[in-house]
Amino acid sequence: MSDLEVISFRPSAEQYAWTFGGAAPVMRIRPPAVLELFTEDCFAGRVRSPEDLVSQVCEFPFLNPQTGPFYIEGASPGDTVAVHFVSITPARPWAASTTVPLFGALTGTHLTALLNDPLPEVVWMWELDPAARLCRFTARSVPDFTVDLPMEPMHGTVGVAPANLEVRSALVPDSFGGNMDTPEMRAGVTCYLGVNVEGALLSLGDGHARQGEGETCGVAVECAMNTVMIVDLVKGVPCPWPRLESDTHIMSAGSARPLEDAFRIAAHDMVGWVSSLTGLDALDSYQLVTQAIEAPLANVCDTNYTSLVKLPKRYLGGSTPAMDSAHSRLRDLATQL
Amino acid sequence: MSDLEVISFRPSAEQYAWTFGGAAPVMRIRPPAVLELFTEDCFAGRVRSPEDLVSQVCEFPFLNPQTGPFYIEGASPGDTVAVHFVSITPARPWAASTTVPLFGALTGTHLTALLNDPLPEVVWMWELDPAARLCRFTARSVPDFTVDLPMEPMHGTVGVAPANLEVRSALVPDSFGGNMDTPEMRAGVTCYLGVNVEGALLSLGDGHARQGEGETCGVAVECAMNTVMIVDLVKGVPCPWPRLESDTHIMSAGSARPLEDAFRIAAHDMVGWVSSLTGLDALDSYQLVTQAIEAPLANVCDTNYTSLVKLPKRYLGGSTPAMDSAHSRLRDLATQL
Amino acid sequence: MSDLEVISFRPSAEQYAWTFGGAAPVMRIRPPAVLELFTEDCFAGRVRSPEDLVSQVCEFPFLNPQTGPFYIEGASPGDTVAVHFVSITPARPWAASTTVPLFGALTGTHLTALLNDPLPEVVWMWELDPAARLCRFTARSVPDFTVDLPMEPMHGTVGVAPANLEVRSALVPDSFGGNMDTPEMRAGVTCYLGVNVEGALLSLGDGHARQGEGETCGVAVECAMNTVMIVDLVKGVPCPWPRLESDTHIMSAGSARPLEDAFRIAAHDMVGWVSSLTGLDALDSYQLVTQAIEAPLANVCDTNYTSLVKLPKRYLGGSTPAMDSAHSRLRDLATQL
Amino acid sequence: MSDLEVISFRPSAEQYAWTFGGAAPVMRIRPPAVLELFTEDCFAGRVRSPEDLVSQVCEFPFLNPQTGPFYIEGASPGDTVAVHFVSITPARPWAASTTVPLFGALTGTHLTALLNDPLPEVVWMWELDPAARLCRFTARSVPDFTVDLPMEPMHGTVGVAPANLEVRSALVPDSFGGNMDTPEMRAGVTCYLGVNVEGALLSLGDGHARQGEGETCGVAVECAMNTVMIVDLVKGVPCPWPRLESDTHIMSAGSARPLEDAFRIAAHDMVGWVSSLTGLDALDSYQLVTQAIEAPLANVCDTNYTSLVKLPKRYLGGSTPAMDSAHSRLRDLATQL
Repeated sequence: MSDLEVISFRPSAEQYAWTFGGAAPVMRIRPPAVLELFTEDCFAGRVRSPEDLVSQVCEFPFLNPQTGPFYIEGASPGDTVAVHFVSITPARPWAASTTVPLFGALTGTHLTALLNDPLPEVVWMWELDPAARLCRFTARSVPDFTVDLPMEPMHGTVGVAPANLEVRSALVPDSFGGNMDTPEMRAGVTCYLGVNVEGALLSLGDGHARQGEGETCGVAVECAMNTVMIVDLVKGVPCPWPRLESDTHIMSAGSARPLEDAFRIAAHDMVGWVSSLTGLDALDSYQLVTQAIEAPLANVCDTNYTSLVKLPKRYLGGSTPAMDSAHSRLRDLATQL
Repeated sequence: MSDLEVISFRPSAEQYAWTFGGAAPVMRIRPPAVLELFTEDCFAGRVRSPEDLVSQVCEFPFLNPQTGPFYIEGASPGDTVAVHFVSITPARPWAASTTVPLFGALTGTHLTALLNDPLPEVVWMWELDPAARLCRFTARSVPDFTVDLPMEPMHGTVGVAPANLEVRSALVPDSFGGNMDTPEMRAGVTCYLGVNVEGALLSLGDGHARQGEGETCGVAVECAMNTVMIVDLVKGVPCPWPRLESDTHIMSAGSARPLEDAFRIAAHDMVGWVSSLTGLDALDSYQLVTQAIEAPLANVCDTNYTSLVKLPKRYLGGSTPAMDSAHSRLRDLATQL
Repeated sequence: MSDLEVISFRPSAEQYAWTFGGAAPVMRIRPPAVLELFTEDCFAGRVRSPEDLVSQVCEFPFLNPQTGPFYIEGASPGDTVAVHFVSITPARPWAASTTVPLFGALTGTHLTALLNDPLPEVVWMWELDPAARLCRFTARSVPDFTVDLPMEPMHGTVGVAPANLEVRSALVPDSFGGNMDTPEMRAGVTCYLGVNVEGALLSLGDGHARQGEGETCGVAVECAMNTVMIVDLVKGVPCPWPRLESDTHIMSAGSARPLEDAFRIAAHDMVGWVSSLTGLDALDSYQLVTQAIEAPLANVCDTNYTSLVKLPKRYLGGSTPAMDSAHSRLRDLATQL
Repeated sequence: MSDLEVISFRPSAEQYAWTFGGAAPVMRIRPPAVLELFTEDCFAGRVRSPEDLVSQVCEFPFLNPQTGPFYIEGASPGDTVAVHFVSITPARPWAASTTVPLFGALTGTHLTALLNDPLPEVVWMWELDPAARLCRFTARSVPDFTVDLPMEPMHGTVGVAPANLEVRSALVPDSFGGNMDTPEMRAGVTCYLGVNVEGALLSLGDGHARQGEGETCGVAVECAMNTVMIVDLVKGVPCPWPRLESDTHIMSAGSARPLEDAFRIAAHDMVGWVSSLTGLDALDSYQLVTQAIEAPLANVCDTNYTSLVKLPKRYLGGSTPAMDSAHSRLRDLATQL
């Protein structure tokens, strides 16, 4: 792979970005490029024991540090960035989760503004066993209650600079990607993000050793990550909302409130995508999508909620490959690393 | 299984019910009882070709015919009905789907009332191959475009009479079950429904040869079914919202609008359920549920939307069996049929 | 008014209805007919002091007693019932309000299911001064804090039997009317409700000495009422969602969740209504409605939320009178009582 | 008023801002200061005839030009900016409204993503008669149909730089104010906005000759304005969500989706505000707010929806004046201009 740029980057404390858009690029990269990155956890590494309450140890708005942004040479509005995750590896043998006052699906929040008191703030430290690929939960209320869940590392946040001159907090998911918090953002998957500004300004962070769908309490099994990914451009192909592709599925991700609008965005995007790949008209595509998709929730806790729609590629017959075959091309490149 | 009541019932045209509550029982059964039932499709069997438009051949409100209701002897408010699906078998070699004006996730509706014209009304006839367990989609807009999807038979609708003196259309999903339209309602699964009135008044219908999660266009691959199920009672155990149990998972189903409330209901029920099975307090359970669940959408098209939360039973350790072990008990009975 | 049937009716304790649909009519009336009615408060009269907590003194589902239903001779599906409120007069010198656990806009509920504890249950007794037309609020937390608010009597609940074979709790607002909880339902106003079943089966209750828009805590200044109203039929004119008419305004009421759908229903109905009255096409009507309406919320606490849209009649020029001039006709009749 | 800074400012074409945050201040002002400003209409003045379709003559994202931002000396996070509107006067004898594809309450949008075609794009030119204070609507579909509506000039958009390092489009309403589109933003009213960054960075625009509540089609009677306002600071008093004050009412404005969350934010803020002004505890305040407020919708079309809650000040008895008496102080200053 002599012609592939390989870049290793571990940000210093001052180099993290806290927004999509509005942050100066940490470097320029020439696609396709391999990035070996360190990402800090969503707490900026400050929650390290059950005594480290977010409300006390974290400093708003300095949450969810992003590694990047990377200026991708040649990326212009109307193009799409393809990010293929080669590996996502927990950088520490532990991870943390917590409740956060006025945050999460099962509590009043700043928007679902209620007169109830906030829930108590409790931290759970998780032990990671990379060899066994397990995450160990230890209960706080019942002595000796532990359970091992599979380690399924993912990035909660990956995005580019927004359109419309905006700068958004790294905690926000929207059409530019961002804090989508979907377990589908795992190694082996390619994430597609439409370019809104010259250079795209890609960044990522928010590693999760694992996460349930919906991210119910608002916080996953949060940990720093060492991540290898290949970044490429799909020139001249737009991508209005984030899409993902694995060896077996294509996926669309919608982010909005109420949650049905997040689902509508994803399903609407998938109907259009299937039409463009197969030549079916919109209603035929609507029918096929209706009967064929899985619809796993991503998050029901962030500023926007995120809903995914997944379609097995084998149901598309001999259709045109998605996104100029970017996934299979990057998959091949990955095998050569 | 000499001591098990086995009942075969195929309703005559006048015997279908169109509501939950408000219909006289077709018979009384003594639990546990095996029921061998025929259910008609949601169109009352009237959509049989691409020319059979729902708006023309169906007669509102006579949609979604229910087989039942069955009066379950001994069932009282505070108890739970357990319905174990032994087999769900398409009764015809074809199934139908369609768009319905002002119905579905990607169109204005009677509630999401817009000035846009309704989408065109189009019918798709699906060929079923029971031997290969496949459903064949044939496109309308592209000649020769066909694709085979796995047959995964399920019931969109299963419910009991509602609380609060109400009678609800068979098209409604709510706390009494009803038209939840989840693909999880398949053979091998036990569905739990809280009893609201004496005798519970259980009915079911709306067979789907398969359905994508979310039932995007509002209509699945609809077909008549021959279904075998075992009905039992869990005395003295309430069930405020529908729950399901498979060999591997426990599941909660919430139905409401907006969709986040459907998810909240399901996740809240799961947190309480896990607490009661494990002895964890609410926050520990909240944390475990957050990291462990899958959250597949059921429907985003009906009067209420339905969201499921699924938890692998193996994450509960040596906890108390759910619902007095009803699932494993019925599973065992099923093997003896 | 020798030819007007005048009926006085005060239900006995067993005569109240608790649902729309499903209750036998208390009497048949021949429209137009004057009804002099007593309605009990939403607590069935059981909250009479600060110690009377709803959770203790009320018996679910026996809340929101309805006076009626009245079988209106000649009413058939496709017609509209017109209810003109001549007077609404508090029947007692006091009224009650309260918080109810898991009910209200600023708390978790059975649908917005959260892990927070319910708010405390507190009762407020209001003194009514009919002569001064004032309602006196006395605070619980600050000694001697009282404030007088205008008495503006209204009915929270007025409705007919639902369509689709349904029976709904008297606590529900929907297309059949019901528990809309809008302060616009006051003396001098005519309420239009589409007929779904033979005889319409009209009932009403839930008097409020006054109510803020949105009914934020879920409970208004609740009191028994003596109400005089004239009931008439508008034959051959349908009314898909409730409408109101005063001397100055026409109004549409939508009930749904999320709240934007309630607004959409009301605004969509108003656009169509204005088109039919003026001959403007849908887009011209959309524009006029956009610039001309008031949009006061009714309730953001019930099973469905209710949003009203009000348009001054003077903006409609020399258009066709609404609903076959029912309001002005009943207004004239009222002056002759 | 010799000691009041009086500033007249009419931006050149390049001086408009298109965002809240992220734009360099056009000038620094020392509060209290009188500003005499010109604001362009939301179309940047480009819709001047029925042939000027927004999709053709406007250039995204250059919509909703803001006059400002003004750096307010001494303004720091934790303070509140008070903007008192002395006069709002249409700058031209005409105004424009229009439908915009995929925008508005009664159509599918980019978020409520549907398969329906967009509504037709139609422009309405309104004639303004400042002397008579009337706005004349002329229908497109019915010859000679005109109607005069009262001129009630207002600003749809007034805001400060957001918190959390964000930059938001001028089309967005949120906790920083912005595109709230409430008819309450009229002359005689004081708007309070919490300061998020040094200097606050206040701007405004989006004049409406009038607007119905809800701004149903997404566009009001849009016109350029000459506006006189007094800007002051309330030091040391925070304001988490926008508040307004007139001679008779205090108001809270919430912006979010779904619409019930916008209402919750406003009602929750009002409950807290009333508590702080009266000394009532939260539940007493909840009760008083429930019975006393009006709840007019502002917009049901923008990125966030906006809901207002209004409380008559006379119901607060001899309570503490709101916001250190800023409204009455600025009201007095205004009379001296």
